[in-house]
Amino acid sequence: MVATIIMSASVSPLAPQHVPDMPAIAGVRLATAQAGIRYAGRTDVLLALFDAGTTVAGVFTKSKCPSAPVEWCRDHLKSGKARALVVNSGNANAFTGKSGRAAAKLTADAAAKAAGLKPFEIFLASTGVIGEPLDASKFVPVMQGLATRAHAGDFFTAAQAIMTTDTFPKVATAQARIGKATVTINGIAKGAGMIAPDMATMLSFIFTDAAIAAPALQALLKDGVADTFNAVTIDGDTSTSDTLMMFATGKAAGAARIARATDPRLKAFKKALQQVLGNLSEQVARDGEGARKLVEIVVEGAVSKASARRIAMSIANSPLVKTAIAGEDANWGRVVMAVGKAGEPANRDKLSIWFGGIRVAHKGARDPGYDEAKVSAAMKKPEIYLKVALGLGKGRDRVLTCDLTKEYIAINGDYRS
Amino acid sequence: MVATIIMSASVSPLAPQHVPDMPAIAGVRLATAQAGIRYAGRTDVLLALFDAGTTVAGVFTKSKCPSAPVEWCRDHLKSGKARALVVNSGNANAFTGKSGRAAAKLTADAAAKAAGLKPFEIFLASTGVIGEPLDASKFVPVMQGLATRAHAGDFFTAAQAIMTTDTFPKVATAQARIGKATVTINGIAKGAGMIAPDMATMLSFIFTDAAIAAPALQALLKDGVADTFNAVTIDGDTSTSDTLMMFATGKAAGAARIARATDPRLKAFKKALQQVLGNLSEQVARDGEGARKLVEIVVEGAVSKASARRIAMSIANSPLVKTAIAGEDANWGRVVMAVGKAGEPANRDKLSIWFGGIRVAHKGARDPGYDEAKVSAAMKKPEIYLKVALGLGKGRDRVLTCDLTKEYIAINGDYRS
Repeated sequence: MVATIIMSASVSPLAPQHVPDMPAIAGVRLATAQAGIRYAGRTDVLLALFDAGTTVAGVFTKSKCPSAPVEWCRDHLKSGKARALVVNSGNANAFTGKSGRAAAKLTADAAAKAAGLKPFEIFLASTGVIGEPLDASKFVPVMQGLATRAHAGDFFTAAQAIMTTDTFPKVATAQARIGKATVTINGIAKGAGMIAPDMATMLSFIFTDAAIAAPALQALLKDGVADTFNAVTIDGDTSTSDTLMMFATGKAAGAARIARATDPRLKAFKKALQQVLGNLSEQVARDGEGARKLVEIVVEGAVSKASARRIAMSIANSPLVKTAIAGEDANWGRVVMAVGKAGEPANRDKLSIWFGGIRVAHKGARDPGYDEAKVSAAMKKPEIYLKVALGLGKGRDRVLTCDLTKEYIAINGDYRS
Repeated sequence: MVATIIMSASVSPLAPQHVPDMPAIAGVRLATAQAGIRYAGRTDVLLALFDAGTTVAGVFTKSKCPSAPVEWCRDHLKSGKARALVVNSGNANAFTGKSGRAAAKLTADAAAKAAGLKPFEIFLASTGVIGEPLDASKFVPVMQGLATRAHAGDFFTAAQAIMTTDTFPKVATAQARIGKATVTINGIAKGAGMIAPDMATMLSFIFTDAAIAAPALQALLKDGVADTFNAVTIDGDTSTSDTLMMFATGKAAGAARIARATDPRLKAFKKALQQVLGNLSEQVARDGEGARKLVEIVVEGAVSKASARRIAMSIANSPLVKTAIAGEDANWGRVVMAVGKAGEPANRDKLSIWFGGIRVAHKGARDPGYDEAKVSAAMKKPEIYLKVALGLGKGRDRVLTCDLTKEYIAINGDYRS
C-alpha cells in the first residue's frame, strides 16, 4: 500500500514518487510538537518513547568538532539501553561551547521529567543552524504534552518534524522473520539539505521490534552503514552532527532474543536492514542540494574494495565531474582526472569508462565505436549510471551522489539572514 | 617599469592591474606560432631554445594517469640537460594511448630537426582538451620557422601562446645576486582555467641565466614549490598534465657555477625564486574559474606545519566554505565543519576564527564582541583573509584559493561542443 507525496514546486525532481505506508512498531511511541526553535508554523521537535528493555546502537560523524548532542549520545551509548529520543530541527547545537552542553542536559532533563525516566536513558539529536546557542528552555513547556500524546506512531509525521531544508520527508520500512517471529524495521532520515546556510546534518533513526542485544545491534548497524550511508556523498563536506541510531524494542510477538550479530537467524533481518538503510541513504542523495541528477558510480577491477571505494569517492566528489553531469556531458576526461588524483593504483592504459551502459573510453583512449547521440540521450535522464573498469583486480564498489548545479551555489551562497 | 594589461569584459576581476616589463634572459630564445591545433586566430605553440650547458629541473602532476608529455619529460629529466622546450595549447595529449606517445615523439623529432638538436634534449608540455588525439603533424610545418625566428625573448607573448581559457597571461620576474653576478629569473604560467570542458592544466616555466647544476636546481624547485604552487587550490581537482619546469642557462655575466642547493651564495636567489613562484601561483588563484574573490587561508596553532596545511586545504576545498565566501557570508560554522572533517588534531573548544582580521568565533563559540556590520564590509572586498587559530601548537601554514560561484558551474557545466 502506498500514499502519494504531495509535490510542491520546490520538491526535488528526484524525490520518490510514492512513500510506503509505515506500520507501527511495538514498543515505540511517537509525538511531535512546535517548540518554535527557528521555524514558524511547523513541527520542530520529535519525542520517541521506547518500552523498557529497548537496546540502542549508534554511529556518528567522524568530525573532530562534533555537536553537543553527538557527544551526549556517545557518552550514554555505553549502557546499551534507551528509553527515549528527542530530536529537534532548526538549531544543531554545534560549536556552542559550554552552553551547548548545558542545552543538551536541559533537554534530556525535561524529557526525563515528563516521561518519568532518567536523563541518561534519553538520546538526543539536533539539526539546523550551527554556532548559534540553542535555547533548550523552549522544549520544557512542550515536553509534558509530547510525553502524554506519544502513541504507536506516525513515522511520516516524525520524519517531517526533523526536516530542515529537505524537500521531502524520508521514510522506509521492511519486514523480516527471525525464527518464527515477524519483525518490522522502520527508518526515518533527514538529508544534507543546507538551504539557509549552516544546515549541514544527516540524521537517521531506525526502529525495530526485534530483540537484539546492544553489542550485536551495534555490529549490525556498523556493517549496514558501510555500503549505504557511508557510500553516499553530496559535496564531500562532513557535518558536525551526523547521527544514525537504531533502537530495538524486542516487543515483536514471539521474538527470540538474539545475543550475537553472527547468529544465523539474523540472515533475513540483515537483508531487510540493508534495504531500509540503502533506501534512506538513496533518498538523501536524491535530495542533495540543487540536485537534478542522481548519479550511481561503480568502480570495478580495482586492487581491492577499499581502493575501489576511494576511487569512486574521488569521482563522486570531483566538482568537475559533477558539473559535467549537470551539463549532461559524458565527460570521461574528467573521470580519468578523478581516477588519477585518487592516489590509488590505476593504469591509464587499462582504463575503460561507461556512461549509461555505453562504453565511451577503452584501454586508455576514446572508444572508437562510441556513439555520441546514444550517450547524449543517456545523459539527459534523471538517473546517471557511471562505470569505471580499472582492469587490475577484483575490487568493486558503488557510491551514490548527485550533480553540482547553479542551484547548489544559490542555496549555499545566499547571504546568511 | 610596468605595462597596463588591456582588460576585456571577460578578464577576471582579480587580474593584476599591471604586468612587469620582462627582461631578456641570456641563453634563452623564444618564438610563437599558430599551428591551428584548436583555436583560430591566436598563437598556440611556443618554442624556447636554450644555449648549450643549460640545466633543467621539473616537478609534475601526482596523477596516476599522467599525460604523454609528462611521461616524456620525466623520462628525459634524468640527463639534467635541456636545449629546447615546446609547449602547445588546445590539446593536452592526455589519455590518448599509444598515439599520444607517438605524438610526443613526433613533436620532439620536429623540434630537434628544425633546431639541429637531439630529440632527448627537447622538453614538452601540452594543455587543452584531454582524450582527443593530438595531431602533432601540424607542428612540423611551423617548427622550422619557429627555430629561425627565435630571439631573446618576449615572455609576455610566450605566456599568451600557452593560455587555454585563462583570462589573462601570467608572467613574473625578479633579480638576485649570486656572488658578484646579477642573475634574472623569469616565469610564465597558465592556470586552471577550464572553460570549454576538459581543459585542466597548470603549466609554468621558469627561466634563469644563473649557473646551477641540475641536482641543485631540482632541489631549489622542489623547495620553492612547497609553499607556492602546492599551496594553491581552485577546486581540489588535479590535472593529468600539471608541469612546472625550470631552465638555468648559466649565461649571466660572471655567473659562478653553483653545484649544491645548500651553497650560501644562493640565499638571495632562493628568495627571488620564491617571489616569482609565489607571484605566478597567486595569479593562478586569481584566474580560478568564475573567481570573484581571492581567498587567503592561514591556519596557526596546529600541531605541525603539515597538519596546518591539511586543515587549510580542507577549508580551501570545501564547497560550502567557498560558496559562503561567494555569497559574502562570514560563515564560520562552515569553517568549523571543514576543520572538523580534516582528520587532523583539533579541539573545538580552543578554536578561534577571523574573517578580514575580525574575530568572529573564539574558544569554541561565537565571539560575543563580533560586529556583523564590520565583518559584512570585510566580506565585500575582492580579497578575503581567513584565519583559524587551533590553540594546540606552533604549526602554521597558508594556502590560496578562490570562491565558488555560479560562473564556475556555467563554465564547467556547459555541454562539450
